[in-house]
Amino acid sequence: MKAAIVGVTGYTGVELIRLIQQHPKLTIGTIHSHTMHEHAEKVYPHLNGFLDQEILPYDPQLIQQENDLVFFATPAGISKTLAADFVEKKFPIIDLSGDLRLKKPSDYQRYYQKEPAEAALLAQAEYVVPEFNTAQGNLIANPGCYATAAILASAPIVQQGWLAGTMIFDGKSGLSGAGKSLTDSSHYVSASENMTMYKVNQHQHIPEILQQLQQWDPDLQHIHFSTSLIPVKRGIFMTLYAPIKETVTEAMLYQQFLETYEKAAFVRVQPLGKMPALRQVTTTNFCDIGLSMNQETQILTVAAVIDNLGKGAAGQAIQNFNVWAGLPETAGLLQVPIYP
Amino acid sequence: MKAAIVGVTGYTGVELIRLIQQHPKLTIGTIHSHTMHEHAEKVYPHLNGFLDQEILPYDPQLIQQENDLVFFATPAGISKTLAADFVEKKFPIIDLSGDLRLKKPSDYQRYYQKEPAEAALLAQAEYVVPEFNTAQGNLIANPGCYATAAILASAPIVQQGWLAGTMIFDGKSGLSGAGKSLTDSSHYVSASENMTMYKVNQHQHIPEILQQLQQWDPDLQHIHFSTSLIPVKRGIFMTLYAPIKETVTEAMLYQQFLETYEKAAFVRVQPLGKMPALRQVTTTNFCDIGLSMNQETQILTVAAVIDNLGKGAAGQAIQNFNVWAGLPETAGLLQVPIYP
Amino acid sequence: MKAAIVGVTGYTGVELIRLIQQHPKLTIGTIHSHTMHEHAEKVYPHLNGFLDQEILPYDPQLIQQENDLVFFATPAGISKTLAADFVEKKFPIIDLSGDLRLKKPSDYQRYYQKEPAEAALLAQAEYVVPEFNTAQGNLIANPGCYATAAILASAPIVQQGWLAGTMIFDGKSGLSGAGKSLTDSSHYVSASENMTMYKVNQHQHIPEILQQLQQWDPDLQHIHFSTSLIPVKRGIFMTLYAPIKETVTEAMLYQQFLETYEKAAFVRVQPLGKMPALRQVTTTNFCDIGLSMNQETQILTVAAVIDNLGKGAAGQAIQNFNVWAGLPETAGLLQVPIYP
Amino acid sequence: MKAAIVGVTGYTGVELIRLIQQHPKLTIGTIHSHTMHEHAEKVYPHLNGFLDQEILPYDPQLIQQENDLVFFATPAGISKTLAADFVEKKFPIIDLSGDLRLKKPSDYQRYYQKEPAEAALLAQAEYVVPEFNTAQGNLIANPGCYATAAILASAPIVQQGWLAGTMIFDGKSGLSGAGKSLTDSSHYVSASENMTMYKVNQHQHIPEILQQLQQWDPDLQHIHFSTSLIPVKRGIFMTLYAPIKETVTEAMLYQQFLETYEKAAFVRVQPLGKMPALRQVTTTNFCDIGLSMNQETQILTVAAVIDNLGKGAAGQAIQNFNVWAGLPETAGLLQVPIYP
Repeated sequence: MKAAIVGVTGYTGVELIRLIQQHPKLTIGTIHSHTMHEHAEKVYPHLNGFLDQEILPYDPQLIQQENDLVFFATPAGISKTLAADFVEKKFPIIDLSGDLRLKKPSDYQRYYQKEPAEAALLAQAEYVVPEFNTAQGNLIANPGCYATAAILASAPIVQQGWLAGTMIFDGKSGLSGAGKSLTDSSHYVSASENMTMYKVNQHQHIPEILQQLQQWDPDLQHIHFSTSLIPVKRGIFMTLYAPIKETVTEAMLYQQFLETYEKAAFVRVQPLGKMPALRQVTTTNFCDIGLSMNQETQILTVAAVIDNLGKGAAGQAIQNFNVWAGLPETAGLLQVPIYP
Repeated sequence: MKAAIVGVTGYTGVELIRLIQQHPKLTIGTIHSHTMHEHAEKVYPHLNGFLDQEILPYDPQLIQQENDLVFFATPAGISKTLAADFVEKKFPIIDLSGDLRLKKPSDYQRYYQKEPAEAALLAQAEYVVPEFNTAQGNLIANPGCYATAAILASAPIVQQGWLAGTMIFDGKSGLSGAGKSLTDSSHYVSASENMTMYKVNQHQHIPEILQQLQQWDPDLQHIHFSTSLIPVKRGIFMTLYAPIKETVTEAMLYQQFLETYEKAAFVRVQPLGKMPALRQVTTTNFCDIGLSMNQETQILTVAAVIDNLGKGAAGQAIQNFNVWAGLPETAGLLQVPIYP
Repeated sequence: MKAAIVGVTGYTGVELIRLIQQHPKLTIGTIHSHTMHEHAEKVYPHLNGFLDQEILPYDPQLIQQENDLVFFATPAGISKTLAADFVEKKFPIIDLSGDLRLKKPSDYQRYYQKEPAEAALLAQAEYVVPEFNTAQGNLIANPGCYATAAILASAPIVQQGWLAGTMIFDGKSGLSGAGKSLTDSSHYVSASENMTMYKVNQHQHIPEILQQLQQWDPDLQHIHFSTSLIPVKRGIFMTLYAPIKETVTEAMLYQQFLETYEKAAFVRVQPLGKMPALRQVTTTNFCDIGLSMNQETQILTVAAVIDNLGKGAAGQAIQNFNVWAGLPETAGLLQVPIYP
Repeated sequence: MKAAIVGVTGYTGVELIRLIQQHPKLTIGTIHSHTMHEHAEKVYPHLNGFLDQEILPYDPQLIQQENDLVFFATPAGISKTLAADFVEKKFPIIDLSGDLRLKKPSDYQRYYQKEPAEAALLAQAEYVVPEFNTAQGNLIANPGCYATAAILASAPIVQQGWLAGTMIFDGKSGLSGAGKSLTDSSHYVSASENMTMYKVNQHQHIPEILQQLQQWDPDLQHIHFSTSLIPVKRGIFMTLYAPIKETVTEAMLYQQFLETYEKAAFVRVQPLGKMPALRQVTTTNFCDIGLSMNQETQILTVAAVIDNLGKGAAGQAIQNFNVWAGLPETAGLLQVPIYP
C-alpha cells in the first residue's frame, strides 16, 4: 500500500517517513507541505539516498490518485478543513493532529481556541488507542502524545473503579513535543540546562484524556494536569499520582497492570517498584510503565515513558494503520530502542 | 572572619570556595579533604589565581587554630563522628551534610541506613531554615536541597492549616545533586537526553521535611514524595500538589505567599499563575516560587526552583553564617543570576 | 559613572546588565531596545529585584542627558548609523557590534554584506584588545568573540615572527554566539547532541583578526579559519594549528606565551602541554591558553578558551571601559568562574 | 549464522546486539562478559522483549560450539590473549578492539602502553576498511572510530598524491567514544556544556591511520592529530585540513571524492561546499563527507561525520561481516538515521 504524508516538514512528518521506509507493507506515495517545496533530501540531508522525491504542494486529487491512504501530520487547525473532501470519497485518513479527537466542539474551542470541525466530520472520526479499541471506518483520529501516556498510565485503575480521589498527572516533555516552530523557549540557549512549566491545567490534551477515561468511569469528572519542558529532544515522562481505595493492595494493582497489558505488544510493565528511564523507549513505539504504592499515603505513583514522536505520534499512527489494514499490529515497528 | 572547609573536593565544597571568595567579611582559612591532597588550583583549574592553597588532610587542631568556624561539606556519615570534638570546645560548625538534621535517631537509621549521631550531639544541633528560624548556638545543621525547596513551597499553606489532604511533592534535580561520585546513572552518556526516577517515597529528605512541617502542623502525618534526575547540572525544580480546603481561595493563597516571604530577601514570589523557570535562579541563593490554583480539583500547584548547590547547600550555608554572625543576611550573596 | 545600554534584549546586552550591576564604579542609567518596551524584570525574570527600570525606545538625547557613556550591544548594521551623533558631541561610545572594527570599508562590505560606516567615523574608531593597546579617544570598537580568542592564541607567535606557514584556526562556539534570533539551527532539537560547521573561511571575524595581526607582521597575508557550533550555551574553544620555524623550540614558545601575558590579568597560561577545558572560564572575562608542540610535524597546537559573552563581548567591553576610565583593569570583573 | 559477542556490557557490545537483532541473516548465539553475569534484559531494560538470554562468563569452548563467529567488543588488552585459541581452530573472529590492528608491535607498545600481541597473531590479522579492502582469512581487525573517519576523509587525496604538506586532523568525539568506564571527565556535570581536548598528538589511532595511508603513499611520514570531547553521546566530527598542491583545483578534488566513493554504499559525499551535521548519521553506518577549498591558503577543509558506535565500531563490524560472509554489504544496515 501507498501512503501520502501531508506536513512532512514537521518532526512528526519526518518520523512518519522514517517509519514507513522500514515498513514491510507500506511505502511512501507522495509527500506534501503547505510551506516548503524542495527535494526532500535537500531539506533533510539525513534522508540522502532514502527519499528521492520532491515535497509537493497540498493537492488532494493527486493524493487520492497516487495513494491508498493519507496521514495528516499538520498543526492544529488544518486537517479539520481538509478532511471532508477525503471522507466524502471514503478515502482513508489517519489524522495525527488534534482536530478530530474531541467529540464536544466546545472542548476544542476552549482548549485550542479555534473553530471546531463540522459536527458531521467529528461524528465519523474515531479516536483510537489501539490497546483498547479498533477503528470501524476510514477516519482515524490518532491520540496526542501526553494523552497516550496518561491514558496508558491510568487505564487499569480507572477501568477497575479503584480511584479514591483526583488523579494528578505531572507530564514532562522533550522539546520536539512543542513542534518545530521557533520560539524563545525552544532556543537551545533557553532550553538547555533548564526546565519550564507551561499551560498548568490548560493543556489541550486534558479533554482528550477525560473523554477516553469517562468511557470507563462516567463519574470521573476532573483530572489535575501539569506539563513541563525538560532538556531532551524526544520523550515524555508522565508521572501519575493516583489516590487508591483502601481495599486495593499493591499486589492487586500490579496484577491488574500486568493483565491489562498482557496482549499489548508495545506496553512493557516493569517489575514492581522499578521505574522506567525515559531513554529506554526513545525512537520506538513502546510505552514502559513502572508503579510504586505508598502504604502511608495510599497514593500510587505510576511512571509511563514514551517517545512523543513514536508511540506519541508517528509510531502509534503506524500501529493504527497496521490494525486498520489487517496487518500484524507490530509490522515495521519492532526495532530495538537506540541505546545509549 | 576565617572559615575552614572540610570536603573541598565535592561540588558543595567548591561552591563554598566560590561564595566565600566573594564575601565581604569571610575569608578561607584552611581547606581539607579526606581523599585528595594537592594544590587547590591544580585540582580545579578554574580557581587559578584565586586560591593559592594546598588541600590539607583533615586536622581538627589546625582547623581550630587557624579559623573562626568550620563548614562540613562532607558526605553523610562523616561529620557525626567529627563534630563532637569541636562542639566540646564551642567551636562553631555549619554542617551541610544530613548527619545532624534529624532529631529522631530512628529516622536517620531508616533513611540513611547508617548509625545515627550521639543523642547529645543531636540535641545541640539546630536545623535552621533562615527564612523561619535563627540559630541560638554554635552547631547549625544546614537543610538539604530538596528539603529547602519543599519547605519553602509548602510553608505558607501548612502554617495556615489550609491543607485538605496529602501533599504530593514531585522533585526534579540536576545531576550535581547526586554528588561527584561516579555512577552509571551520572555518566554523561546515560544522563544526557534522559530522565530517571529514583527513591520514590524513600528519599532521605522526607523525614527532614516532615520534622519541619510538623512544627507548624503537628497533625501532618505524611507527605508523598518522588525524586527524579533531569539532564541539567544544577538546580531543583520542585512541584507541589496541595489539596486545599474549600473555603480557601486563590487570592487568599497568593496573599499568604506574599506575606510569608515579604521580608525574605531570597524568596521571590512570581506574579500569580506565572511559573518560574529553573534557570532564573541557577548559581544563586534565590528561591523563586509560582502558584496556580485549579478551581475544578481544588488542588494548588506550587513550583519552587532553587540551585541545589546555592540555596540548596552552600548559598544557604553562607546565609546561615551571615545571620549567625550578625551580618546582613544577604552579605556576599546578591549576585545577578547567570543568564543565559 | 552611569552607562546606557542600547540593545538590552540580546544576550550581550543582558550580560552587560549583569556585569554593570556588580561593578564598583559603574551603574546603569537607561536601557534601550529597538524592538521591546516593557519592564526589564518582566522580560527577564532572573533580574527580579535587580533592575527596576523600563526598557525604553532608542532616544539619543535622553541617553546623553542621563548617562556618561553608552554601550551599543546591537546587531551588525545599527551602530554605524547611530554613532555619528554621539561622536560629534564627544559622547563616549563602546560599540560591541562589528560595525566600527574594520578599517577597510571593502572588508565590511564583503564579510557583512552591508554598506559600511562613513569613512570619518571609521577613522575615529579604535579597535582595542586591552591586552595590547589602549584607547586614546572616545569611540571604542570592542573586538568580536572569535577574534578575541584567535588574537590572544596567536599574538605571541606572530609578534615574534615565528610562523613557518599558514595558521589554521578551528573555532568552536556555543549557541549564544549566534545571537538570540530564532533559526532552525538554534532550535534545541536541532542543536542538542549535534555539531555543525558553518561559514568555512567566510566568517566576518577573519578580516578583524588579519587587521590586528598585520600590525605585528605586515607580511601575514592569510589565515585559514573555520567555525562550528557545539551544543553549549556559552563559550568559544579556539584551536590554532601554527607551523613553526625550525629554530624555535617548545621551551621558547612557552616562555614567550608566559612573557606576553605576564601582566595580563585575564589571560591565564596553563602549564605546558595541559589544555584548558571550556568550562573553566565560562561566565568570566578570562582567556585560558594551553599549548603543545609536535616535534614531528613542527606544528604548535594552541587551545584558547573564553566565554563568548564575557571576554568575547560584555566582559571585554567592561575591561575596555575600566582602562578608558582610568580604573583598575579588573574592576568588577574578578569573579570565580562558575563550576560546575 | 550465529554470532557470539564477548564484551556485551560496553557501548559497542550493546550496539552489536541491536544491529544483529535487525540483521536478516545473523542471530545472536551467546553473549559474554568478563564482569557481569545477569539476564541481559535486567542489565539493559531497553532490550526487554528482545534478548531473553543470560550474560555468560567468557567460555571459548561454548562460544565455538554454539556460534559461527565471534565479535570481540572488549577493551584494549583482552583479545590479544584470547584470539590465538580461536585462530588455531580457524574459528572466525571480528575484533573491535585495537589489539590486532597495528602491524608494528612497537607502535602498540608506544600508544597503548601494553605488551603487544604475538607476532604470529598479528601476521594473520587483517585490518579491513571495507571501502578499500576485503578480508582473505578469518581474523578481521575492525578499524577504530577516529581512524575510520580520518581514513575516509583523506583517502582520495592521499591516493592521488595531492598533498603539499602535513595533514592536520581535528577530531571531536561524543562521550561514548571514551567507553562506559566512569571517570571525572565523563560525569554529566563535567561533560555537559563543556569541551575538552585530550591526548594531543598521542591518540592510539594515529599509528593505525598512518599504517593505512602509507599503503597508498609510502612517503607520508606524519600526521598532526588532536582529539576533543564534545557534549554529545554519539558521533565523531572529524575535520581535516589538507595543504593541496598548487596544480590541483577544487573541481578535481570534488570529482575525486565522488569517484572514490561512487560504489561505497555508506559514504555520502555532500554537494560541494556544504558541510555535514553530526546528527545526520547518528545511529547508522553512514559516513557523510563535505569539502571546501580555500583558494587563498590552498588548504582543503574536509568534514567527515560518523557515529562512533556505528560506522566507527559495531556498524562497520557488521559491514565487515557482510562482505566476509558473501552477503550484500548493506545487509541489516540500511536504516534511516534517527532525526531529530
